[in-house]
Amino acid sequence: MKYFDFASTCPMSKESLQTYITASQDYYGNTESLHDAGSKAETLVEHCRTTLADLLKIEKEGISFTSGGTESNILAIHALAEINRGKHIIISAGEHSSIKNVTTKLMSFGFEVSEVSLKNKGIIDLQHLQELIREDTSLISIQHVNSETGIIQPIEKVHEICKNNHILLHSDCVQSFGKIDLASILLVDSFSISSHKIYGPKGVGVLYIRPSLSFRPFLPNVTHESGVRPGTLNTPGIAAFTTAAKEMIMNLPSLQNHTRELKKELLKHLEEVKHKIEIIGSQLESPIPIIGLCIKDISGQHMMLEANRKGFCFSTGSACQMSNNAPSQTLLAMGLSEQKAQTFIRISFGRDHTLNNVRRLASVIVEVIQDEK
Amino acid sequence: MKYFDFASTCPMSKESLQTYITASQDYYGNTESLHDAGSKAETLVEHCRTTLADLLKIEKEGISFTSGGTESNILAIHALAEINRGKHIIISAGEHSSIKNVTTKLMSFGFEVSEVSLKNKGIIDLQHLQELIREDTSLISIQHVNSETGIIQPIEKVHEICKNNHILLHSDCVQSFGKIDLASILLVDSFSISSHKIYGPKGVGVLYIRPSLSFRPFLPNVTHESGVRPGTLNTPGIAAFTTAAKEMIMNLPSLQNHTRELKKELLKHLEEVKHKIEIIGSQLESPIPIIGLCIKDISGQHMMLEANRKGFCFSTGSACQMSNNAPSQTLLAMGLSEQKAQTFIRISFGRDHTLNNVRRLASVIVEVIQDEK
Repeated sequence: MKYFDFASTCPMSKESLQTYITASQDYYGNTESLHDAGSKAETLVEHCRTTLADLLKIEKEGISFTSGGTESNILAIHALAEINRGKHIIISAGEHSSIKNVTTKLMSFGFEVSEVSLKNKGIIDLQHLQELIREDTSLISIQHVNSETGIIQPIEKVHEICKNNHILLHSDCVQSFGKIDLASILLVDSFSISSHKIYGPKGVGVLYIRPSLSFRPFLPNVTHESGVRPGTLNTPGIAAFTTAAKEMIMNLPSLQNHTRELKKELLKHLEEVKHKIEIIGSQLESPIPIIGLCIKDISGQHMMLEANRKGFCFSTGSACQMSNNAPSQTLLAMGLSEQKAQTFIRISFGRDHTLNNVRRLASVIVEVIQDEK
Repeated sequence: MKYFDFASTCPMSKESLQTYITASQDYYGNTESLHDAGSKAETLVEHCRTTLADLLKIEKEGISFTSGGTESNILAIHALAEINRGKHIIISAGEHSSIKNVTTKLMSFGFEVSEVSLKNKGIIDLQHLQELIREDTSLISIQHVNSETGIIQPIEKVHEICKNNHILLHSDCVQSFGKIDLASILLVDSFSISSHKIYGPKGVGVLYIRPSLSFRPFLPNVTHESGVRPGTLNTPGIAAFTTAAKEMIMNLPSLQNHTRELKKELLKHLEEVKHKIEIIGSQLESPIPIIGLCIKDISGQHMMLEANRKGFCFSTGSACQMSNNAPSQTLLAMGLSEQKAQTFIRISFGRDHTLNNVRRLASVIVEVIQDEK
């Protein structure tokens, strides 16, 4: 397998696809319909909701099914931003484009948005966060894991700060869900997860909002998903996502060990060019299946395209920012120069990768580096 | 087949599901990724966009893929409402809940919303529409076909009025797409369609906005779908939807004939209770596969539940309003009394129904009516 861009998207697992096929044939009714075809679909969706709630140890009443991580983030920010009276929001400089874009939009409704800076490893600067807090800060949004560096943010500490200041906390957990234990998200007021990052179908996600929170939904009078998200539920997608989520979470320890082995193997086989490479962000011992690398004097785009010519796929950053063709905002926020940020590549591993797959990838990277001499 | 609620949702067709399976296995890359796995997915999505544009005879540049009809309507109203300076929107009294809810939301941003009334057959009152138009009317939203009555609205005439008054026109085409020729939508500025109403997957839709229109997208800085809709594209869903759309549109004349036969057969076999039933809206000669019936002195809910007990599924109105348990707003707007509106049932046909299926449904309805004597 030569695909190393699993942080961007994954193929569906066999089990997830099989669930999709079964559900699309046998549970096709509209969950809102009151006849048996509808009830059957509704029962399946509620079973999925309970399963996910149990897996994540959260209240099922807080789970709304959405069309993906981006929609979950948009709905969460809209909902939480209006609960408190203040009009000041703090996000991290490394947030996903959906969080940046929706908070930018809120600026035209009178909100102010501050960005907490990243320290050079990519972790948010908690001191800076404290300094940014104002009387009117109503919401803080900090991603759990960065999609480019794989860095895990200290959500527990952010929660402590939020609690002490009566500020709501949202966390984008798209890159952490299914990769690390999500105990810390039990602390947040809302979080987003996405199906296609964990071998489920595209077009499915979850927004969790703590059920005790009273908020104004995005649209009035919506009958679906407790009013949080309108539109016919994608029953087969939700079922397939739940299958995928179960597969990941039930096998978390072995998946994490596998990830660490793959990362170690890659670095071992990049040994001969180690003077040319620098790991950015997540280190080898982290179970997040992402390695960010800057390669001296070789543009990330060149490296990506050369590897692609040899059949290997990885990326130069978040796919949701690719069309911009600008250096990663996360890397710049970490203090990398624009020139250095342009040399960045992101390798992200899948659970079916073998050590041999990784060795072949390493040899391609070494080849490209040596060809540049 | 005992399912008669195809206006609410359809199972996926075999062909559409097969496309989904193939695409999820072979085209799983992120369309925004610049490597081959990404390009392959992007090529497929662009092929789908071109196919749909050709089928509908529209410009492919105007097509954005969304998560469904509801999201398409929400994005369209947000986009179009802000193009002109006026803050007055006119919708029909029979619009889908998504249009009603998003325009209600816009009222908190200073918009005023007027509802054009329906005449007793369910067609909008064009005279009333003319009267509602003000200097500051910026947008009119009229559905193409009503989901409860199957009534086809005179979009050409509405377009004429819009053109004369420099007002933008949106049309919710969720119930008309794949059922009737969409030549009239070539006239509108934007329209919405949904995949699961035509045997495609749930969670997929299209928003078309005339490419010559310059509008502010819902979120700033979005890189997907020309900025119109953020989030990773659901490539397998889009491909499966396109397969479903092709099947419907290529076979439109024969599907329409089949629909008329099914409707005729139903009415023929309800002959013995004809003094108890009244067709609401769409008549037999219409190719829309919906028959709305009021049944004297029998609540729609009772009829629906009794039929359900015998294995037949139909509805008492739009699934998106079911949880409200209130009589249909469309029927009330047509002048039906609340009591009469409560006797409404909607039967909607599928393309695989046989005349025999319909005869069995008719006999169940007759049975329930006669049991009430």
